[in-house]
Amino acid sequence: MGGERRSEYVFKGEGEEISLDDVYAAREIVSKHAKRTPVFTNETISSLAERELSFKMEVFQKTGSFKIRGALNAIFSLSDEEAANGVVTHSSGNHAQATALAAKLRGIPAYIVVPENAPKVKVKAIRGYGGQITFCGLTMQDREDACNKIQSEKGCTFVAPFNQKETICGQATIGLELMEQTDCGLDAIVVPISGGGMTSGIAIAAKSLNPNIKIIAAEPRGVNDAADVHKSKCAGELQVDAAKPKTLADGLQAKMGNLTWAVVKELVDDVIVVSEEEIVQAMQLIYERMKVVVEPSAAVGVAATLSEEMRQKFDKSEYRNVGVILCGGNADFSAVGFWDAWTKRWKSFAS
Amino acid sequence: MGGERRSEYVFKGEGEEISLDDVYAAREIVSKHAKRTPVFTNETISSLAERELSFKMEVFQKTGSFKIRGALNAIFSLSDEEAANGVVTHSSGNHAQATALAAKLRGIPAYIVVPENAPKVKVKAIRGYGGQITFCGLTMQDREDACNKIQSEKGCTFVAPFNQKETICGQATIGLELMEQTDCGLDAIVVPISGGGMTSGIAIAAKSLNPNIKIIAAEPRGVNDAADVHKSKCAGELQVDAAKPKTLADGLQAKMGNLTWAVVKELVDDVIVVSEEEIVQAMQLIYERMKVVVEPSAAVGVAATLSEEMRQKFDKSEYRNVGVILCGGNADFSAVGFWDAWTKRWKSFAS
Repeated sequence: MGGERRSEYVFKGEGEEISLDDVYAAREIVSKHAKRTPVFTNETISSLAERELSFKMEVFQKTGSFKIRGALNAIFSLSDEEAANGVVTHSSGNHAQATALAAKLRGIPAYIVVPENAPKVKVKAIRGYGGQITFCGLTMQDREDACNKIQSEKGCTFVAPFNQKETICGQATIGLELMEQTDCGLDAIVVPISGGGMTSGIAIAAKSLNPNIKIIAAEPRGVNDAADVHKSKCAGELQVDAAKPKTLADGLQAKMGNLTWAVVKELVDDVIVVSEEEIVQAMQLIYERMKVVVEPSAAVGVAATLSEEMRQKFDKSEYRNVGVILCGGNADFSAVGFWDAWTKRWKSFAS
Repeated sequence: MGGERRSEYVFKGEGEEISLDDVYAAREIVSKHAKRTPVFTNETISSLAERELSFKMEVFQKTGSFKIRGALNAIFSLSDEEAANGVVTHSSGNHAQATALAAKLRGIPAYIVVPENAPKVKVKAIRGYGGQITFCGLTMQDREDACNKIQSEKGCTFVAPFNQKETICGQATIGLELMEQTDCGLDAIVVPISGGGMTSGIAIAAKSLNPNIKIIAAEPRGVNDAADVHKSKCAGELQVDAAKPKTLADGLQAKMGNLTWAVVKELVDDVIVVSEEEIVQAMQLIYERMKVVVEPSAAVGVAATLSEEMRQKFDKSEYRNVGVILCGGNADFSAVGFWDAWTKRWKSFAS
C-alpha cells in the first residue's frame, strides 16, 4: 500500500509547518464523516489524452464537492470551548454548503455570509444543510465586515475556505486516498486551482509519498485573461492585484492566500491555463462519455489534461499515469435553462 | 452470497424454457466483456422515497446502457459458422450501439438498419463502435424489409433487441449482480420497461433467487396516454394495437414481443405509470443529487419509485429495501441545446 511509505518531508513557510502526519491526523477526522470517493477510469478520455487517467470522483463527495473535507477538519479540530459558539464564513459556493454541513455534524451553529445576488438555489442548499444566512453587499470588504460583525456578536470562529492549515490538511486527504487507490503509481496529478487549498494539500500529501510526482495546477484563463496563479508562478511572487477571471468555472475565482501561495510556489510544477471553449468541450466529454455531472470548475482539470500544452510539456510515455481531480458536481442547470428545455420538449409532443 | 441460493424455478412459455442456469451461463459470456456495474446509494432520494434505495448503475455500462449485455450473449452464443457472416439488427438507439460493439468484440461485421431521420449523434456513435449503417424509411415495415434484405444478401443472423431467449438471459445478469451486491436483501426491484427484455430477465433471475421479491415495471404514460404494458397487464393479454407513447423516454417506445409478454404476464407484480413531468423531476434529482447523467428512460424508474402510487401500493415498511435500475445514460444534450447554452453563457461574460 502506497499509504505506508512515509517521507520526512515537511512543508515550512509563513509560520506554519505541514507534514504527512498532519494529513494522516486530518484523515482520522475526515474519514468519520466524508466519503472515501472512488477512482474511475474512462477508455475514451484516456485514449484522447494518450495516457492512463485516474479520475478522483469528488463529485460524489457529500455536499457535491471536496470542500467538506477541509471544513470537517477545521471544525472538528476546534476545542469544545471554541466550537460552542459556532463558526462563521463567507461564501455563496461549495465552501458555504460544506461549512454548514460540517457544523451541523458537530452540532454547532454555522453563520454563512452570502452576497445578496447569490443564486436562490445556492441559498436554498446552504439552508438545507442548516446554515444560518446573513446577506451582505457585493464587495470582499462587505463580506469581511459582515463576518467580523458576526464574530464579535456571537464569539464564533472563522472557517477559512483555503488559507488555513486545517483546511489544507483536510483537502490533502484527497491526495492521500488517490495515492493509495493507485498504489502510488501516478506520474502526475492535475488539480483545478482557485485559492489553492486543494492544490496545496494534494501537493504536500503526494510529494511526501512520492517526491518525483508532478503536480500540475489547471486554471481558467477567463474571457478577461486573468489566470493569476499562472502569472504568480511566472513572476515568482503572488500577484495580489490581479483581476479575477470571468469564467464558467465559478468555483475557481478566488485568489490564493499567503500560505497556499507559499506551498504552490514550492511544490506546484506547472500551471496549465485553459480557455472557456476547452472547458465546455471537457464537460461534454465527461457528461457524454463518463455519464458524470461535473461543474465547469471540475472540467478545467480534464481540459488541461487534454490540452496541447500538456502534450508538449509532459511527454506521454514519461508521464503515462495521470490523476485528475473531478472536484465538484454542483453545476447550475437552471442557469442554462436545462430543466425548462426538457419540459418544453415534452410539451411539444402534445401539440 | 445470494448468488449461491438456487431455486428450481424455470420459466416455460412460448416454446422456450429459461432457468437460472441459463442466466449463469449468460454471465460467463457477459462478464468477459461488460462491466459489473456498481450499486450506488443516495441519502436524499432514499429519504424522499422513505425507503432504502439501491441504484444499479447501468449508466456506467459499456456503450452507456445495459443493452450490451443482451447483445453480447446473443452474439457470443452463435457458433463460429453462424457468426462468420456477421449480424444485423434495426435500431437507432442503445441496442444498435450495443450490437455494433458486441460484434466488434467477436470480430464479425454488424449491419445496422437505421431510420433515415435518426439523430446524427446516434449514427456517429454506431459508426464509432464499427457498425455498418443502412438507412431505411420510418415505418417498422421499412426496417424489417431492410433487415431481411441484408440477411439474405449477407447470410447474417438477426439479433433481436428483446424478444429472444439469449437477449433476455443477457439482461438477466443485471438482476443476478444486483441480488448478489445487496445480499439478496431487496424487497422489490423497479425496472423501466419497453420491449420487456430487461424486465423479463431481471424478473427471472431475481424471483429464482427470492420468490418473494416484487418486480415492479415502470412505464411512461406519454402525452398520448399510451402505456401499453399497463394496459396489457390490466387486460391480461398483449395489447398489440396499442399506440406507442410519445415521451421524453425515447428508449421506452418499443412494444413487448410474445416471449417477453409471457414472462411479464407471469412474473411482473405491478406496473407503475409516470407522467412526463415526473420524469423531468426525477432526472433533476438524479443529476443534482447523485451527480449522475441519465437518459429520460432511466429516470422513469426513479419517478415510479417516488410516485404516490408506489407509496399506496407498496407499504414502506414492508417494502423497505428497493432496487432501482438506472438503465442508461445516453441523454441527448444537444437536442435540448445544453452545450450551446454553456457557450452562450461564457460569451456573455466577454460583453
